[in-house]
Amino acid sequence: MKKKQIALISTGGTIEKTYDELSGVLANKVSVLDVMLASLELRGVVVQRVALMNKDSLDMTAEDHTHIAEIAGHMAKLADGVVIVHGTDRLANSGERVVEVVGTPASPIVFTGAMRPYELRSTDAIQNLTEAMLAVQILPPGVYVAMHNQVLQFPGVVKDRTAGTFVKYS
Amino acid sequence: MKKKQIALISTGGTIEKTYDELSGVLANKVSVLDVMLASLELRGVVVQRVALMNKDSLDMTAEDHTHIAEIAGHMAKLADGVVIVHGTDRLANSGERVVEVVGTPASPIVFTGAMRPYELRSTDAIQNLTEAMLAVQILPPGVYVAMHNQVLQFPGVVKDRTAGTFVKYS
Amino acid sequence: MKKKQIALISTGGTIEKTYDELSGVLANKVSVLDVMLASLELRGVVVQRVALMNKDSLDMTAEDHTHIAEIAGHMAKLADGVVIVHGTDRLANSGERVVEVVGTPASPIVFTGAMRPYELRSTDAIQNLTEAMLAVQILPPGVYVAMHNQVLQFPGVVKDRTAGTFVKYS
Amino acid sequence: MKKKQIALISTGGTIEKTYDELSGVLANKVSVLDVMLASLELRGVVVQRVALMNKDSLDMTAEDHTHIAEIAGHMAKLADGVVIVHGTDRLANSGERVVEVVGTPASPIVFTGAMRPYELRSTDAIQNLTEAMLAVQILPPGVYVAMHNQVLQFPGVVKDRTAGTFVKYS
Repeated sequence: MKKKQIALISTGGTIEKTYDELSGVLANKVSVLDVMLASLELRGVVVQRVALMNKDSLDMTAEDHTHIAEIAGHMAKLADGVVIVHGTDRLANSGERVVEVVGTPASPIVFTGAMRPYELRSTDAIQNLTEAMLAVQILPPGVYVAMHNQVLQFPGVVKDRTAGTFVKYS
Repeated sequence: MKKKQIALISTGGTIEKTYDELSGVLANKVSVLDVMLASLELRGVVVQRVALMNKDSLDMTAEDHTHIAEIAGHMAKLADGVVIVHGTDRLANSGERVVEVVGTPASPIVFTGAMRPYELRSTDAIQNLTEAMLAVQILPPGVYVAMHNQVLQFPGVVKDRTAGTFVKYS
Repeated sequence: MKKKQIALISTGGTIEKTYDELSGVLANKVSVLDVMLASLELRGVVVQRVALMNKDSLDMTAEDHTHIAEIAGHMAKLADGVVIVHGTDRLANSGERVVEVVGTPASPIVFTGAMRPYELRSTDAIQNLTEAMLAVQILPPGVYVAMHNQVLQFPGVVKDRTAGTFVKYS
Repeated sequence: MKKKQIALISTGGTIEKTYDELSGVLANKVSVLDVMLASLELRGVVVQRVALMNKDSLDMTAEDHTHIAEIAGHMAKLADGVVIVHGTDRLANSGERVVEVVGTPASPIVFTGAMRPYELRSTDAIQNLTEAMLAVQILPPGVYVAMHNQVLQFPGVVKDRTAGTFVKYS
């Protein structure tokens, strides 16, 4: 059986934050995505890593959202699917921007992120990455977020800051 | 948004094996599924647990496979999807039996299992359960195994004992 | 064999920091010491918990150091040994203060702490707590820090901020 | 400060058992001691590894116990201390044999082991190795077992099979 080609675009965010023991803070310095990927059994896909940026999404500009959308739309033509790791605070902004710029992409584009960094033993990063990597293989073309055991389709997705997750608004 | 009702049927297998420190062996004694479920963020579903049996699948009889198939087909009518945790050695036997007994079920039926018990720090149990719980929400009705980042549809799935995973035969 | 009575005084510090997913920072809010203790097999001791304060040690005043010293000296008379969990930035200040206030205590007083919080998967908190809980049983009366697989005796201990550990100055 | 030279003799046992996913059993095949050592911060010691044997201690012969005792006594002259990783079922046999063959060694000899393999997430292996590596630095010359937060001196130590730990008999 032919393996699916998945483009994995990293943009930073909580999921990739690491701990600096000298300053005692969590920051976006090195990507831990490769460590996470190595901890998973990925039998169905070939992953192509695209390290686009490494930003706390609160620092993203309108140009960043457009840039992410354009790259995602482009990669969706080359691959069988695109997964985008993104800070949750502005994840919905990038998601809506993909729909505006790309419309329906050539293959599924699935965003994911985390509320608690991979470095924490109680992280949700592994669960969310697992879900995005699976969902991208079985969803029809479209723009989605996969996180916390649910898949939501853009447009119309927002972060519920109180619940710490994503929801559809009606 | 209405949450999906998912029936989670446990039958035993490696995924649920626990370590007995006095005898030094791994065995199917207590279900660790609840511990695994508690470690995940399950925002999209309401889980109904069905503790059907707790067997090493090598000990399953033809009657066990048929029993699993009948219960799965029945639960697929009542719920929005069914996840079945199963030993990998005979998982394909139960999967094929569901197709024979049920045909196309009323909602998706997704099998999963593990090659390394949850109690091991290098377990694949959490990844596989995460995948099954997500796949069951977005797949069309049918019978599948979700494991190791791939989804395969019955009939025609076998365990590749050398690779330690499932594959489609052609 | 009679179990040793060990007083475990918690004062806060990195070892007890927990992650607040809404603000995205690590802070001293709830004690994770009980979780750590539950993860260890403590056959040789009976632990008496003394939750003295829960401070980042950078916020400790001269009065805090004296208060810790007095309580430690007092508990050393009542118990077979005292373990103090402390932020590493000012751990040496409290250690020196114990020597000034108490001299040679009635039973061993062992400080410990961590460079990386327990909540991180790469934490040194468990190792350091394990070492302190063992060292306090076999050291002669005195004031020590046990951390990173070494035991150093006060006075004359300082934090090496570059190496991220404690050393004796000569 | 001069670091202590510690000889670390591995003989096998539960602590080093690894999981074979094809046969589904835990066995002594490769040493996981190096992985454990790498996960600890060892600032006080230089470790010299001696891979003596890799046996379930139930398979040890009288010759094995004598061989372990002779090597331990020899290494105690060359190093500042000796740690021996050993299966718990026959750990006490080797411990008593060291006392018979060596008497009081030139430096402390500390046995340790585990009831639950390192590969299990609920292992006691890391705790026990941490304790042995610390105890060997601060104990006077003698033969000991350090495990489960207690240090017991040979002769007169036995495994309590019901409690799953070591005790002194009187």
